[in-house]
This record gives sequence, C-alpha cells and structure tokens, in this order.
Amino acid sequence: MKLVRYGHPGKEKPGLIDESGNIRDLSGVIDDFTAGQLSDTALARIAAMNHASLPLVSGNPRLGVPVAHVGKYIAIGINYIEHAKEANMRLPKEPIVFMKAVTCLCGATDNIILPKDSKKSDWEIELGVIIGRKAQYITEEEALDHVAGYCVANDLSEREFQIERGTQWDKGKGCDTFGPVGPWLVTRDEVPDPQNLDMYLDVNGVRMQTGNTRTMIFSVAKIVSYLSHFMTLLPGDIIATGTPPGVGMGREPQLFLKPGDNVRAGIAGLSEQNQDVIAWSRTQEVPAPP
Amino acid sequence: MKLVRYGHPGKEKPGLIDESGNIRDLSGVIDDFTAGQLSDTALARIAAMNHASLPLVSGNPRLGVPVAHVGKYIAIGINYIEHAKEANMRLPKEPIVFMKAVTCLCGATDNIILPKDSKKSDWEIELGVIIGRKAQYITEEEALDHVAGYCVANDLSEREFQIERGTQWDKGKGCDTFGPVGPWLVTRDEVPDPQNLDMYLDVNGVRMQTGNTRTMIFSVAKIVSYLSHFMTLLPGDIIATGTPPGVGMGREPQLFLKPGDNVRAGIAGLSEQNQDVIAWSRTQEVPAPP
Repeated sequence: MKLVRYGHPGKEKPGLIDESGNIRDLSGVIDDFTAGQLSDTALARIAAMNHASLPLVSGNPRLGVPVAHVGKYIAIGINYIEHAKEANMRLPKEPIVFMKAVTCLCGATDNIILPKDSKKSDWEIELGVIIGRKAQYITEEEALDHVAGYCVANDLSEREFQIERGTQWDKGKGCDTFGPVGPWLVTRDEVPDPQNLDMYLDVNGVRMQTGNTRTMIFSVAKIVSYLSHFMTLLPGDIIATGTPPGVGMGREPQLFLKPGDNVRAGIAGLSEQNQDVIAWSRTQEVPAPP
Repeated sequence: MKLVRYGHPGKEKPGLIDESGNIRDLSGVIDDFTAGQLSDTALARIAAMNHASLPLVSGNPRLGVPVAHVGKYIAIGINYIEHAKEANMRLPKEPIVFMKAVTCLCGATDNIILPKDSKKSDWEIELGVIIGRKAQYITEEEALDHVAGYCVANDLSEREFQIERGTQWDKGKGCDTFGPVGPWLVTRDEVPDPQNLDMYLDVNGVRMQTGNTRTMIFSVAKIVSYLSHFMTLLPGDIIATGTPPGVGMGREPQLFLKPGDNVRAGIAGLSEQNQDVIAWSRTQEVPAPP
C-alpha cells in the first residue's frame, strides 16, 4: 500500500493511494498514522479493506509527512563509497549516526526554505525507512520485520553550519523544512528488495544525483539492527540511510541551492518529491512537525 | 512554581509542589504539561489558583519528565572551560550542538540502565532549559522570555559509543534512560539569575562534579538565541546546557558507572536527582518517552 497524510500542515488526514492513483480517505477508519497504526496487524487490516469503497478525495491536496508524531528522525552519514570520496571523508568502519530535528520534517511538495544566513544549502536524496515495530537489540535477520515501509527522503544539509562551525553535524541538518519525507509510505511488502532501488535528484531539471541502494556500505537491515543497539526504535521513527554521490558540495565548482530553484528527487517505486526553494522571511509559516 | 508529572511511566498526571512540599494534583485543571500549557498565560493561570484547594496527592509517587510530548532534546557540548580541559577539547568559538534521542528521557529517580555492551557510561550534571514559547531567530535579549523554566538534567554519555566509534556524538548520547530530567520544572520567575546556580553530582556519596553556571562559556540566553537560528524551538523542547568539570572520563584513572552505583545530582533551587544504576536485561522495561 501507499499511505499518505493529506491536507493542510498540522491538519492532515490519513489516506491511501488506490490502484488508479486516487487518494482514498481513511479518516473514518483510523484517527491518523500514529505509532499504533503502523504495526503489521494494523496495516493488514487496512490492506484487507475494499479500497474502492473508501471515500474518494477530490482535488489535488497537499501531502504531508506520511506518519504522525515522529519521535526521532535519525540519519546515517557517508553510506555510499562514491559519496565518501566527493565529501573527502574516510570510509566508516561502522555507521555514522546523527539526528535531524523533528521540526525539519515537511511534505514532499512543500517549499524548501533556505535558512536566513545560508550560503551552502545542499541536497541529499536518501532512502527513508519508517519503523513499524519497537526495536531493541535486534539482529540483522530480524531487522526488516520492524520496518513498516519506505519513503523518499531528502537529507537537506547546510554545509557551513554542518562542517565549518564545529565538529557536530546536527546544526546544519535540522533547519526548518530540511526534512521532506514522502510523498507516501510504501509498505514493505511492496518493496521486496530495499537494496536494489534506483534513485535520482534533479535541480532545475539537471540530473545531479544518480544511485542505487545496492551500493550502500551498510544495508538497511544492518542500519536498523545497529541503531537498535544504541537506542530503542519506536513505531513512527524515521531513518535516512545515506546519500549516493552528486551533492552540491562535491561538485567543481561547488553548487548550492538558491531561491527560485526547483528540486525533484525520486526513488523507484516510492514516487517523487517536487519542491521549490525560497528565501526565509519572517512571514513564512513553517510546517508544524508531524 | 515547581511543576511535576507524577505516576507510572506513560501514565503521568500533572501536578505542582505546594509550599509544604506536597504534590497537588492538576489533572482537573489541565490534561497534561503539553506545549499549550507552557506559555506565560497558561502558567500564570495556574499560579493564580489557590494551591491549597487542589487535591493533595498521597504517598510518594514516582516523578516523570516534567513536560509531555518533548519534540527535541538538544544539548550543548563543551560549555565550561574546565570541562574542555579534562575532555582534551579545544574551547569552542561558538556552541557545539548535538541531539539526544527523546527515547532517552526518564524521571529523576528512575533507574539508569547501562547499555548492553557499555564499558564507559559517564555522568554530566547540566542545567536543563525548557522552552515555553516558539523561538525563531530571536536575539539574546529576547531569549529568556521564551523559556518556561529550568530543571536538573544529567546528560549521560557512553564515551566509547560517543567518541571512539565515529566522529558524531549522538550514538553515545541517546541510549535509553540517558536523559533523566527533573524532578520538576521550576518556572523562570523563581530563577532570577540562571547564570548563578551551584550544581553538583555525587557517585556513591563521593562528590564528582562541582560547578556554577556562572562559568559557562555561552550563557543560557546566548544558547537559546543561537539555537533558534538553526531550528525552530517549540514549547516542550529541552536544552541541556553543558557540564562543569568532574566527569568520569576526565579522572585519572578514568571511572565509569557500574551496576549497583548510585548517582545524586542537584542544582540550587531545582532539587536533586537520585538514581540507581542497573545492568540492561531483556525484561527491563524502558520508560516510554514523555
């Protein structure tokens, strides 16, 4: 299934994408895609319904983050060999873990707002993993059973804030709107092999990133298992699993986002994000965290 | 006021500590200390009530994290000169920012659970700041108006996970129970000068850390203003503002926590945490995030 939360920021309702690509409303079935609605049992119940009988949502509503009340947005650094080279980083012996502030989360067509003093805002297309079942000290073999599904994620990063203003990256990773996720959560039954997904990112129609999850250094199963040894993963937690090469920082000359740019980022089977880049202004409302 | 959330993990009710030190129940007044209940207006309403008329809570209930639905737990590294020396770190030119997973949050008398493979679990007494009003690009002069209150925080840290297994610290900062906060939120009107608070931490009755917030490199006002330039701060967000010297990593020989240890950590006017250290076991229930 392709699960969505549609509507204005902070007022999203749950829905799903039917076989014809229409949104069907699920707000008569569940309150929202909160933790309790991401278990295998809860998802199987929705899957078993007659989707054609669910109310059709008219128009073309905004799609928000596909899960509600995200507790943690965890990210993995330097997880593709070619990206390590362009970032001038050594290959990690084990996953590099950092965190994105949950206030950075936004929908797949929301504007990307450049921070007020940003000179080096950059893109990173990544496979997003959404946890469906609590995970503590789980093995790699068990790991994917704890995943509700997958989504497109762009781990936007302000490189000056991230790298030039101290050793810890979180400062440049959690700016408002730096966490577009979606447009939808694709349940894991529709992603038989998360290690064979083509991905791309275009800026203003020019292809910047091309990759495939098969070239990850650490697999999704490894990452989920690994993280569960450092913190308990809960349903609704999101993990961004690293980016393939082609970020702006790695180009010669370097290239960063500016107001008026358009970013399209997609992963095979998980659809596409399509966002405009705008300057920050005090009147600009930032999406409420899901 | 001294605000608390009392009761079993995940089932806490809001309350306050009256002049005699008793807990008075606020669950007939508000649902919980969620974002909307941390504004100046909401807190003034509670302050104006006749506290002696609120239901007295009997017994000696557990106190949980004093705010509900914490969105972000942000922390500042190396914010006391003497701690920089013992940690072999250079003095930062601007605040070092990292994040603690919200699943690490627990109450002030809950057990500290050592992670399964932990050899270097360490303590860090810190002044905790709880945001009461949304903050985006605010000045230092405005900053404290956005603070609901203060609390004791222990930024527990697994040094091997934090420092020896990659460059990013979050891995060793967000382990379950590594974020005891409280016992209560002291509203900011009762803390006229957050830059003059004595603080201490004892392990097994031996004084390990002694400090005063006047020796911070970056003040609370500076930190709140600074962070608001990188991410929107929302009511209920918690900030740990750095630790004075005396951590286990900085001792010769180094000293780390082991099962059976007791940790007491306090700040003048904000009360004390008192926790036992236990080994991880699969049957050990971890507190639900607030």
